[in-house]
Amino acid sequence: MKLQNVVHSQQFDIKTLDELFAMAREMEIIAKNGSNLLTGKIMGTLFYEPSTRTRMSFESAMLKLGGNVISTENAKEFSSATKGETVEDTIRVMEGYVDVIVMRHYREGSAERAAQTTTIPFINAGDGTGQHPTQALLDLYTIQKELGKINGISIAMVGDLAHGRTVRSLAYLLAKYKGIKIYFVAPKSVKMNQDIKLYLKKHKIEFIEEDSLKVVAPKVDVIYQTRIQRERFVEKENLEEYEEAHGKYIIDNSILDIMKSNSIIMHPLPRAGEIRKEVDSDPRAAYFRQAQNGLYLRMALLKALLVG
Amino acid sequence: MKLQNVVHSQQFDIKTLDELFAMAREMEIIAKNGSNLLTGKIMGTLFYEPSTRTRMSFESAMLKLGGNVISTENAKEFSSATKGETVEDTIRVMEGYVDVIVMRHYREGSAERAAQTTTIPFINAGDGTGQHPTQALLDLYTIQKELGKINGISIAMVGDLAHGRTVRSLAYLLAKYKGIKIYFVAPKSVKMNQDIKLYLKKHKIEFIEEDSLKVVAPKVDVIYQTRIQRERFVEKENLEEYEEAHGKYIIDNSILDIMKSNSIIMHPLPRAGEIRKEVDSDPRAAYFRQAQNGLYLRMALLKALLVG
Amino acid sequence: MKLQNVVHSQQFDIKTLDELFAMAREMEIIAKNGSNLLTGKIMGTLFYEPSTRTRMSFESAMLKLGGNVISTENAKEFSSATKGETVEDTIRVMEGYVDVIVMRHYREGSAERAAQTTTIPFINAGDGTGQHPTQALLDLYTIQKELGKINGISIAMVGDLAHGRTVRSLAYLLAKYKGIKIYFVAPKSVKMNQDIKLYLKKHKIEFIEEDSLKVVAPKVDVIYQTRIQRERFVEKENLEEYEEAHGKYIIDNSILDIMKSNSIIMHPLPRAGEIRKEVDSDPRAAYFRQAQNGLYLRMALLKALLVG
Repeated sequence: MKLQNVVHSQQFDIKTLDELFAMAREMEIIAKNGSNLLTGKIMGTLFYEPSTRTRMSFESAMLKLGGNVISTENAKEFSSATKGETVEDTIRVMEGYVDVIVMRHYREGSAERAAQTTTIPFINAGDGTGQHPTQALLDLYTIQKELGKINGISIAMVGDLAHGRTVRSLAYLLAKYKGIKIYFVAPKSVKMNQDIKLYLKKHKIEFIEEDSLKVVAPKVDVIYQTRIQRERFVEKENLEEYEEAHGKYIIDNSILDIMKSNSIIMHPLPRAGEIRKEVDSDPRAAYFRQAQNGLYLRMALLKALLVG
Repeated sequence: MKLQNVVHSQQFDIKTLDELFAMAREMEIIAKNGSNLLTGKIMGTLFYEPSTRTRMSFESAMLKLGGNVISTENAKEFSSATKGETVEDTIRVMEGYVDVIVMRHYREGSAERAAQTTTIPFINAGDGTGQHPTQALLDLYTIQKELGKINGISIAMVGDLAHGRTVRSLAYLLAKYKGIKIYFVAPKSVKMNQDIKLYLKKHKIEFIEEDSLKVVAPKVDVIYQTRIQRERFVEKENLEEYEEAHGKYIIDNSILDIMKSNSIIMHPLPRAGEIRKEVDSDPRAAYFRQAQNGLYLRMALLKALLVG
Repeated sequence: MKLQNVVHSQQFDIKTLDELFAMAREMEIIAKNGSNLLTGKIMGTLFYEPSTRTRMSFESAMLKLGGNVISTENAKEFSSATKGETVEDTIRVMEGYVDVIVMRHYREGSAERAAQTTTIPFINAGDGTGQHPTQALLDLYTIQKELGKINGISIAMVGDLAHGRTVRSLAYLLAKYKGIKIYFVAPKSVKMNQDIKLYLKKHKIEFIEEDSLKVVAPKVDVIYQTRIQRERFVEKENLEEYEEAHGKYIIDNSILDIMKSNSIIMHPLPRAGEIRKEVDSDPRAAYFRQAQNGLYLRMALLKALLVG
């Protein structure tokens, strides 16, 4: 399997995903022992806004494969008002210095433009309200690894579904599988948008909007909890609504009590109270394992892009 | 010697210190020739506030031992008001990407919480007004290396003793040795706090408060000069007091003239005028050698944590 | 050839430049295959202001030669008002951690002071309105590589010649060669300063001030375009003048049409509209190759400083 770039999650077919996940599995051993697979290769991370966790998991992935890293969280400087460089120009200069570019940008569509410009492998590490495909891939990898399958699972997506980039990208990916059932459980101010619902309908994926987490929890294999993003409500000067939305769907021991014994709880992290600390010690709490899977999945992507 | 973590300077007993300093001595040669001791290992530096010099000496130490580094000075992003992640959550994610964590935090007690959370080796690189144990260790190592002994020495701690984290931590460490005599020489607004004095009394360490540096200078083996921290007085809108405190204890040629021939001058750096440039060329000016010792001492700590 | 440091472009004689450029040529192959030439060596980048592109090309150069890097874009912290450390002190500490220092500073003359302080190799990566010698060297290397010679060429320097550090440094370097002819094409508010003109006169370099790019374009071997720096006009609250200056000399297809077939267009990048995108596909558009040459030239400098 040789990839040219990673721009959006829809680009992957099931065969590629299978190969990628098999490769990620192998990376769990390589991550422990180290590797010389990418010795002499350099990854450039070009972050137009900080996302330390994402950046660090990419950097760790590259180093564990024997490669090197050059890095900036200050890439916005390139496109500052006074200098005004285009993404295309920045990419054309950068590609002379490195072997693969990982870019995080604040504007939707930038990743597409960058990928079309460059002749070297490129990874979108999130572009504005657009996509964050490596997060969606690691989420799907986690489901497959934890549950042993993806076809036929039922999943509750909980919290801020309107702004949550991760649940949106994951919905696109799940639409490729069979027998999926999705519950949307969201405060009324941040419900899942129409575009995703139309997409799921078109792909014949069953979905149900449900108000009560207590009703949904016993039925599903996965609860995918998300953070209510306080900053979205601050923008709209609607903090009262935030408090209501934030407090509505909390995962605590009372939810654990009614969940299936072989189900899992996922969260893209960071969390801000929507999963109580008391949940952490339950084996169904999969979110830290999920973060760890990000390392393996990104190692697999780097291999697929640079070696095949 | 296998360490699990470095959280506060009191945790070390004399035997461990001896072994650590012997290891630091060996590191002086390894620093020149390089090493593969930590090949394949990754250090993650997690700085919630910038401290470039400390960070860089840790990074250099790791690289010289053959290891790799991933780094952020932007860790405050994790705990920002909008995202609100706990130190514990951040650490649990990070420990999946690296083999050792070096953390600088703005809040006292964070290092303790991080060390209790993580299953991998952890180093406190300063937590608020709390501790900066690796600085205290390199200070003590410098005394031992420069004077050939620690027991029986007399030392003057000069300058801002109220806020100076380094002199406080060093006092804790010196209390483990015999025959130590400490002179506190501080402007009245920033005198050494009561807690340290009680601690020294309890450990039967002799200390004397003295107003005149000229009286003390001929008596001691070490003058440990510190910077009067202007920012502390700005907070209290007391710049007049700053000017007075700042000008009171300056080390210049007139102090050199009365110091013992085999004594040394130390300073944690940066300095801001409290040691005149004219002093630099005197062999007793040990502060740049002291900074250099930070590299060797941190190499020794990384070895002790990752290899033993 | 063993260099001790790189502080200003005038320090190089033609023999050294020839050797350096021959070395840069060899680096084009090494950049592809990697090298162990600098294994075990550490480069410290000390940037008092961000310049991501320059920093990254240095870091890539060091990694491709097998070395390692520790880095900060936050060096201003050292010299902050509250801490007040001198460049000399910072350098004396840093030189204990690394094998070569690359410094970018906001104040002219800092590079000179740093180079005089340190006992290890030092590279000026730009100091205020002063010099940016590695940019001038890569510019000259580009001319030599693209045109096969430097003696006898004619070059148009276009745009902001008053503030453009790169054209100033390049003029100094060109003055070492024979038969050079320089056209200065600048809006009247940002014409080339008197000091450079006197320097060129003294070195018997022919230069002509010309108002029309259309008149000059057909005559020259090199058009060196620069960005009109909007921030300079903002400072003077003179945005009208900016708009006029900015729009005056644009390189587009109509300029390409009248240029010589074997001439080239250079630009230090970033650009902000003064070279139209339509120009990029013309083989005479040399600016991305020029940026790429920065990597090879900096690899050559690191070798010259650390190995010889």
